[in-house]
Formats: sequence, C-alpha cells, structure tokens
Amino acid sequence: MDKNRLEAFSDGIIAIIITIMVIELKVPHNPTWQSYLEAYPVFISYALSFVFVGLYWNSHHHLFHSSSKVNNKILWINMLGLFWLSLIPFTTASMGENSFTNITVTVYAVDLILVTLSYLLLVNQLCLLHGVNSDFSKSFKGYFKSYITIAINSTAAIISLIGLPKIAFGLLVLTALMWFIPNHRLDLNHKKGEEKLQ
Amino acid sequence: MDKNRLEAFSDGIIAIIITIMVIELKVPHNPTWQSYLEAYPVFISYALSFVFVGLYWNSHHHLFHSSSKVNNKILWINMLGLFWLSLIPFTTASMGENSFTNITVTVYAVDLILVTLSYLLLVNQLCLLHGVNSDFSKSFKGYFKSYITIAINSTAAIISLIGLPKIAFGLLVLTALMWFIPNHRLDLNHKKGEEKLQ
Amino acid sequence: MDKNRLEAFSDGIIAIIITIMVIELKVPHNPTWQSYLEAYPVFISYALSFVFVGLYWNSHHHLFHSSSKVNNKILWINMLGLFWLSLIPFTTASMGENSFTNITVTVYAVDLILVTLSYLLLVNQLCLLHGVNSDFSKSFKGYFKSYITIAINSTAAIISLIGLPKIAFGLLVLTALMWFIPNHRLDLNHKKGEEKLQ
Amino acid sequence: MDKNRLEAFSDGIIAIIITIMVIELKVPHNPTWQSYLEAYPVFISYALSFVFVGLYWNSHHHLFHSSSKVNNKILWINMLGLFWLSLIPFTTASMGENSFTNITVTVYAVDLILVTLSYLLLVNQLCLLHGVNSDFSKSFKGYFKSYITIAINSTAAIISLIGLPKIAFGLLVLTALMWFIPNHRLDLNHKKGEEKLQ
Repeated sequence: MDKNRLEAFSDGIIAIIITIMVIELKVPHNPTWQSYLEAYPVFISYALSFVFVGLYWNSHHHLFHSSSKVNNKILWINMLGLFWLSLIPFTTASMGENSFTNITVTVYAVDLILVTLSYLLLVNQLCLLHGVNSDFSKSFKGYFKSYITIAINSTAAIISLIGLPKIAFGLLVLTALMWFIPNHRLDLNHKKGEEKLQ
Repeated sequence: MDKNRLEAFSDGIIAIIITIMVIELKVPHNPTWQSYLEAYPVFISYALSFVFVGLYWNSHHHLFHSSSKVNNKILWINMLGLFWLSLIPFTTASMGENSFTNITVTVYAVDLILVTLSYLLLVNQLCLLHGVNSDFSKSFKGYFKSYITIAINSTAAIISLIGLPKIAFGLLVLTALMWFIPNHRLDLNHKKGEEKLQ
Repeated sequence: MDKNRLEAFSDGIIAIIITIMVIELKVPHNPTWQSYLEAYPVFISYALSFVFVGLYWNSHHHLFHSSSKVNNKILWINMLGLFWLSLIPFTTASMGENSFTNITVTVYAVDLILVTLSYLLLVNQLCLLHGVNSDFSKSFKGYFKSYITIAINSTAAIISLIGLPKIAFGLLVLTALMWFIPNHRLDLNHKKGEEKLQ
Repeated sequence: MDKNRLEAFSDGIIAIIITIMVIELKVPHNPTWQSYLEAYPVFISYALSFVFVGLYWNSHHHLFHSSSKVNNKILWINMLGLFWLSLIPFTTASMGENSFTNITVTVYAVDLILVTLSYLLLVNQLCLLHGVNSDFSKSFKGYFKSYITIAINSTAAIISLIGLPKIAFGLLVLTALMWFIPNHRLDLNHKKGEEKLQ
C-alpha cells in the first residue's frame, strides 16, 4: 500500500466534494436583491461547508504528511471518513434550501460528527501502526479539538431538534472558528514544536 | 505509454465517479424523519456503490503498482473498465430512486458484472504482457474472488427479474463483504507473502 | 512554464469531462426494458463521446510526453482545445436526448471538428517551438488521421442537415474506429519506429 | 506545510470549477438554429468564465512556481480565493440564463473583484513570507493588471446596475483581453527578464 497514492486519491475526492457543492446552488430566475437576500441560508451553509471541508483537507494533509506508512485497514478507515464527507454536499443543500429547518440542521450536525469520529479512528489506527511510543503518536496526542467538536456538534444536533436550529447552526460556526486557533493555546499538554501539527 | 500517467488518469476518473454520485441524492423539501427513512433505498444504494468503487480503486491500485509496463492495448482495456464503472452513478440512482424495482437491480448487477469482466481482461492482458511465468503473473493467479463475484452477481441479476429484487440486492452486499476477507483465507494456492496483493 | 503541471491540469480537466457526462443520463422512473431500449440514442451517444474523449487524452498524452518544452502560447492553445472538449457533455446530451435530430448531430460534429482543429494547431505550435527539423517535429508529420477526421466530420455535419442524421452519426463512429488502426497502416510516410506515436 | 500538495489540491479544484460549468448548460429540446442563437448569453458567459478561470490558474501556477515556501495562513488565503472562484459556475449561469439582467452582471463582476482581491492578498502574504527584499517579492511588484481589473470590474458592476448591463459585460471582456498583453508592455517598472512572470 502506497502512501502517496492514498494521499493523491483522497485529495482528488476532497477537491471534488468541496467544488461540487456549487451545483446545488440553484440559478435564480430574474433575481432581485431581495431574492438573493432571502437565499442567505443557502449561501452561508455553502460557505460553512467550504470551510469544514477545507479544515478536513488540512488535517488530513498534516496527518499523512507525518505518517510514514499505511496499510489496508487504514485505507478503508480513510474511505469511511471520505464517505461521510461525501454526504456534505447533500446535507448542506438540504439545510440551505429548507432554511435551517430543525431536522436538516440535526442531520448536518450528525454528518459532521460522523466525519470527526472517522477521523479520530483514523488517527487512532495510524498511532497503533506507528507504535504507541513513536514520534508520530506523541505528536498526535492532542485530540482536544476533535473531542470539543463532537461535544459541541452533539449539543447542536439536540438543540436544533428541540426548536432552536439557528442557534444550533451558530454552534457549528463556532466549532469551525475553533480550528483556526493554534493548537498550543488550547492544549495543556503542549510542548514546543508541536504547534506546527494542527 | 507511461504507467504513472495511466494510473493518475484512472485515479482521477475513479475519484470523480465515487464523488459525483452524491449529486443524484435529491434534496428533500421540508423533510421529516419519516421521509428520510422512506428514502433508505437511495442511501443504501449510494453506500454500496461507494464501497464497490472503493474496492475497484483498491484492486486497480494493487494491479498497476505491481505491473512494470503497459501498452496501448492495456490502456483501452483499462478505459473499457472505466466506461462500465462510469455508469455506476446512473445505475445506482436508477435502483435507489425506484426503490429496488426488478429491472433496475438487474441492470445494476449487470453493470457490476461488466466492470468485473473488464477487470479480469485487464489482469489477463497484463499477465500476457509481463509473460506467463513472470512474478507479476504468478502473484495474480488468485482470480477466485472475481469468479465468485461474477457468479453471485449473475444469480442476483436473474432472481431480481423473477421477482426477488431485495434478495438480489442482499447478494450484491455479500459480494462486497467477500472482498474484505483476506485473500489467503479463500485462495488454496496461497503462499506466504501473497496476501498483500488483494 | 512547467510541462508537468500543464499535463496534470489537462489530465484533470479531461478526466472530469469524460466522467461528468454521466450526470446527463436521466434516471428513469419505473423503467421497463422497452424504456431502456428507446433511450438507446442517449447511451450510444454517451459511449461514442467516452471513446472520443479517451482518444483525445491518448493523443494529448503522447504529444506532451514527446515534447520537451512549452510556453504561454502553447498553454492557451491547449486551453482552446480543452474549451471545445468541455462542450462535449453538452453536445452529447443534446444529441442523445433529442434522438439524433438533424441540428444536434451537426452541432456535435462541428464541436468535434473544432476539437481536432485546435489539436492540429497545438501540434503545429509545438513543432515550431521545438524547431521544424527537431526529432519532435519529424515524429509528428503524420497528420493524416486528423485531416481524415475533419473531412469525414464535415461531411457528417452537412449530410445531417440535409436529413440523414443517423448516417451522419455512423460516419462519426467510423472516424472513432479509424483512430484504433495503427498509424503505420495509414501513413505512407511511415518509417520504422514511428508507430509508437499515435 | 507542503507547497506541492497545496498546488496539486488547488489545481484539482480549479480544474473542477472550469469543467463543472458545462453542467449548467441546459440541454435544449428539439432545438432550432434560432433557439441556439437566442441562447447566446449562456454561451458567451460560459466562454468568458472559461477564460477567467484559465487566467486564474495561469497566474496561480506562476505564483507558486516562483515561491519557495508556504504556511498555514497562506493556505487559508488561498482557500479564500478558491471560495470566490468556486462561485463562478453559479454567477456565470445566473448571468447567462437571465440574459444579462442588471443584477446578475453586477453579482458576476463583484465575484470577479473578490477573486482578484483575494489573489492580491495571497501575493501580498507570500511577499511578506519570503521577505520584502527577496527575489520573489521583487518579481511580483507589477500588481498593475490586478488594480486595473478591480477598477474596470467595479465600473462594470456599477454601470450594470444603472441600466447598461451589456456594456458592463463588454468591460469584463476587456479585462480578460488585457491579461493576454505581455506584462512588460504595461508595467513601467519593467526590467529585462521579468516578462516571463505574468
């Protein structure tokens, strides 16, 4: 199993996912400024998903850049993550076109949780493959952001169902923003030199 | 003819096929949990095809990773396989949106059979090119899974037509699962060191 | 200007063009064998375009594999060819969904002519860049197939308009088949060693 | 952060953006020459966007080809540019299908301005990273064309709103043409050897 081809294949899929979402933006007929404004749920859903897929690519890139080997099991856990990620154009459009109705925000949040869980599983298996005491495993012990993401997104999934979908969406925006904070400001186990690994 | 560009071009096409299927997932209007549940044929068809295309990529990757040369004939047999594979988003959506009606499951199964036959032809021609007694040819004598796949999928294509499309779909799921069993448990000709080649 | 990135970018675009056509295959509702049979213009148009785009990739690959340099002018002539090629999913679907009506076959044939003319211009400029007496230029003097293609496709474009669109489509199939005949059987200027360059 | 993977990922996204626009070309039913002619806004919008995305790729290619390093901030500014670029299939189809109504031309022009501003920010940050006195920064001081583009496109955005959308579109065509003029004819700071960097 060749790490480079796995990276290239994943990059191809992620690039298509992030770009294909634009097809779901419906072309308006004789639009007015009013009609563009009213379509704001579609546009901010699109923008948020663009950021999430970009974050996924960034994390994925760092992960495989640091790893020195892969195997068949890793390949399929990677495919699992890409599977949940591939649903994002669908869950995004569902949420946007239905203007943040309860269920669609919950489904979107659940999809993000599944992406994150698959990613954690991928990191976990790569750590096992490289050895628990390897440099690779030590550099990835800061799972902090992923746990926070899962916690906040689960909260969002629930409060959307009980009637607060826009607040739930706001929480999802917060988790995206959190990933732009450098790791060392969040991670108490921080040691010098680790902040380059997001 | 350059092996690396053939691999990269095939990878690109496979990555697009696996991702483009999501466009066929219709965005629901004001969905309820009920409406998501009723759309289950669409989602499990999508998931199964995602796995099949992933399996194809995995096999394709191992095949060209092991081969040392290609020629123009190989290129076109490869294109034939990609042609049948490129129809999967269509046959998948047909099956899902029509909730496993007889004909659509048969067409889907036949498409998978054509993909598998093209793949066998590709392996066969690569073996001829490398020489029947080459290391390459010896490592690929375990055609077992492909033959089983064709046998089960042919059965599925027929029993779907005679009125059992959901059982037929179950058989297709079985063939996908079979590919996750390591080769050496299935192949009596197994020798140590060959299990890395799926 | 870097040859490798030009090749990779072109490969990406060609891979997307060849794959994206499947989106134009409309998913049938409760299909019968009859309805699949009646949709034959859609499927054979799809198959023919798949072959043409594959042929284009193959020729493009040989061309840049042989060339040792590119410049900005070459880049834009390459983009011109990709532009006409990018319209193939549209002209294919127009022809298929309208069951080979006169105008749609003519438009499809004209698109193929524009692709071929752009390709000839690309070869011509690459020959000028490498020098008229370079090995590169000598190996590409067999423009024979491109000229035949343009002649036959022009004939097809005209006879489709005068009421024979299916015969016109047959001529287009013929030009595709011609490209599978090895060059040395067609090209009177053939010298040993040139057949590898299609 | 690895420059090559950033380039490859960006190339993938740009290749998809430029190709995916064809999906927005609606397949006509029983077209006449008349109906093709009347659809001219769709086709020339498509052609113009094809050129703009090609220009973006070309500039992007030169920019990263010249740069020797990237960081996380550069990555996200690059993603910002790709975000605005990814909206081009949408803004193009909106403009084409609505036959250049005022608002759609303005939105298209604003999208191009945002692409150009993001690009300028990217150049700016790459210059800071390489050092203000680095060879990299010196070779990119000719921002002339980007400023002209922003000025003309802003004019287009405004005059489209006041009722002259076709003249506005003509101005956008002009800015595209300007990019084909070699830099040294426009840039007063031109020194020998810089014309290779567009």
